[in-house]
Amino acid sequence: MRLRSLLFAPAVRPDLISKLGRPGADGVVIDCEDATPAHLKADGRANARTLGGELAASGVSVFVRVNGVGTSWFDDDIAHAIPEGARGIVVPMVERPTQLGHLAAALEQAGRRDLDVVAGLETASGVADARSLLSHPVVTAGYFGAEDFIADMGGVRTRSNNEVLHARSEVALAGRLASVPVLDQVVVEFRDAERFTHEAAEARALGYAGKLCIHPGQVALAHAAFTPTPEEAAAARALIAQYEAAERDGSGVIVVEGRMIDGPLVVQARRVVASAGADGAPEAGG
Amino acid sequence: MRLRSLLFAPAVRPDLISKLGRPGADGVVIDCEDATPAHLKADGRANARTLGGELAASGVSVFVRVNGVGTSWFDDDIAHAIPEGARGIVVPMVERPTQLGHLAAALEQAGRRDLDVVAGLETASGVADARSLLSHPVVTAGYFGAEDFIADMGGVRTRSNNEVLHARSEVALAGRLASVPVLDQVVVEFRDAERFTHEAAEARALGYAGKLCIHPGQVALAHAAFTPTPEEAAAARALIAQYEAAERDGSGVIVVEGRMIDGPLVVQARRVVASAGADGAPEAGG
Amino acid sequence: MRLRSLLFAPAVRPDLISKLGRPGADGVVIDCEDATPAHLKADGRANARTLGGELAASGVSVFVRVNGVGTSWFDDDIAHAIPEGARGIVVPMVERPTQLGHLAAALEQAGRRDLDVVAGLETASGVADARSLLSHPVVTAGYFGAEDFIADMGGVRTRSNNEVLHARSEVALAGRLASVPVLDQVVVEFRDAERFTHEAAEARALGYAGKLCIHPGQVALAHAAFTPTPEEAAAARALIAQYEAAERDGSGVIVVEGRMIDGPLVVQARRVVASAGADGAPEAGG
Repeated sequence: MRLRSLLFAPAVRPDLISKLGRPGADGVVIDCEDATPAHLKADGRANARTLGGELAASGVSVFVRVNGVGTSWFDDDIAHAIPEGARGIVVPMVERPTQLGHLAAALEQAGRRDLDVVAGLETASGVADARSLLSHPVVTAGYFGAEDFIADMGGVRTRSNNEVLHARSEVALAGRLASVPVLDQVVVEFRDAERFTHEAAEARALGYAGKLCIHPGQVALAHAAFTPTPEEAAAARALIAQYEAAERDGSGVIVVEGRMIDGPLVVQARRVVASAGADGAPEAGG
Repeated sequence: MRLRSLLFAPAVRPDLISKLGRPGADGVVIDCEDATPAHLKADGRANARTLGGELAASGVSVFVRVNGVGTSWFDDDIAHAIPEGARGIVVPMVERPTQLGHLAAALEQAGRRDLDVVAGLETASGVADARSLLSHPVVTAGYFGAEDFIADMGGVRTRSNNEVLHARSEVALAGRLASVPVLDQVVVEFRDAERFTHEAAEARALGYAGKLCIHPGQVALAHAAFTPTPEEAAAARALIAQYEAAERDGSGVIVVEGRMIDGPLVVQARRVVASAGADGAPEAGG
Repeated sequence: MRLRSLLFAPAVRPDLISKLGRPGADGVVIDCEDATPAHLKADGRANARTLGGELAASGVSVFVRVNGVGTSWFDDDIAHAIPEGARGIVVPMVERPTQLGHLAAALEQAGRRDLDVVAGLETASGVADARSLLSHPVVTAGYFGAEDFIADMGGVRTRSNNEVLHARSEVALAGRLASVPVLDQVVVEFRDAERFTHEAAEARALGYAGKLCIHPGQVALAHAAFTPTPEEAAAARALIAQYEAAERDGSGVIVVEGRMIDGPLVVQARRVVASAGADGAPEAGG
């Protein structure tokens, strides 16, 4: 599942939901949790179901963020908020394997075990148990929520992201161990393109597949950051060709632009080519 | 328990102990461990008991740092160093749950299970098992000791603190999982206010409640760093008010100064208001 | 085992192998894995055995990097690649304790349980289980492989090394818990002395004993970085002397150049003196 971007809109904002498909995000999320006040949860569910269904019918990849497993809203969310044709659900504040067992049972009962499940790790407990949580069979992707995590820790968010490097790294590792893609934290300064792009580069370096987006303008930034540039792809292809020629000549190491290249760098290059190729580049490798 | 600062003095320095109360630290520590040479442990204990008792009687929150569980001094420290009216003990170099079991039994036997116990995590083993150690029922707070940790690792301390970010983050996480406050590492350059303030901001961002202090001048810096400024508190109150008004109007998301605000940022704001309020600000929220 | 440097050469490059001893690395590694193409594994083994044997006979500390446990080459590597007089083997891509059990059995059967075993942690799984892997009785040292790790994570390597700080820290911690030395990642930009020296300082701060080297010119840089300078050693000796005098006078804390010095800083100083002394400095302490 390719998830460079998941674009959120509040379930109580039909105006924003109707525009969710435009920026071309890899997935869109109608948010019945944080963005929907407690006294409007029923309205949010109705919007998610009808407007989400229209989006899905038009070919958009639609997710619904339900309220946390164990909240009083969760069962109704599963029963009433998920539209026909939805691709999946986003589950916030996942902390314990038993919650995921409950979720799997609820989806089973609703006849919706086909849905993708994006598990949010955004508390101390969620991060601490990231490995077992993301490895749960019901989970198909994950995300790290920096704002909620730091709220739970009683810490302070900073531009340096130093205070979340440990948790962000641990969630990326857990995603890899579970073989599910993980998405990186929101940038709440939604007009700050530089910060978004900087964070996206950090996230890609750590192994994240994409970023949560809370504004349509962030989607293109995410796709740019999580897709190799044509120059990167060309350099990677050249490196692979040079390495394969050297290998035929009996050498397992080559020097390219002052760098000693062997197996692991070739693996990295093949990955660049593969993800560039998914966008329709002429010669996809690896 | 509010612990923005714990101010240390050697148990063999009556002159410094007598002045421990002046800077208004949240707690003071008479140190029978590192700061007391082996041949003076008995003198240290006597000072801790008598001078500590006087401080406690004058309303100061007094702790004694005992020698590590398992050292030849530990039993005598528990029996003879803890003054009447002490608030707690600080236990260095905690590495194994069995040590905490031994400690709990020793306190029980001495009739002192009322004492707070601040557990020092400052070795590779202590950091590696931080989660189980801080969750032990005898523990009421913790600290991370960077100098001892790096000495044990065979590493080198630097101003960047990069070499301890992993351990510092892990101890903060363990504290949150155990619901006990944790205090951050000492700054041995005791006249370097800039370094102290920078480290304190890092520590607050990570979720630490305060810092260990080894000089009276560090106490005010710690309190400044771990208490929201009036401006921070005012901004947090305004954000909460704006959010609550928006919520009544049916929206779960607002925009404040270019930032998209929803649940987790409101939780962070409430925490700011709460800790500002504890200092007697006029309108405490949260 | 002192391992400030391990210098690699491809097993298919007799010209480079013959020069491996010159830079005076603490160990040299004939690489039958990444640097040897699949169709030349047998040639590589023969070179490792004969040329490695000559190096060992001339007093060089020789290691062979075998292919991973479980690959089709591994058994032949153990049987045919290890020269007379070899000091050890380097085992890449270690991920599970069962692989180390298999390795121990293979060494036993070959009558080579005397060999040192340097275990490479360079995948998500290897890093995730670093503590149990490095604690396995067959392992006598470890290394962290950043390029392979990031290739496995699907991430991107950067000069900041932020994307590997978590994994690098975790491997250093695991090494300390297991009481085995660990070596830090390769710098593939082999002419970039500044980057090598910067990374080596980071690694030493984290507790690493040395660095993998892929070019003869990196060995001297590694030794410089992982050996205290005469100035550092002299300052450490002075600090210890001053502290011991103060201790005799009844104080467990001294002030040296604006720093409050007690137990842990003295431990750090003794370690500096000890590692300086190993190079033949006149007055080795600690």
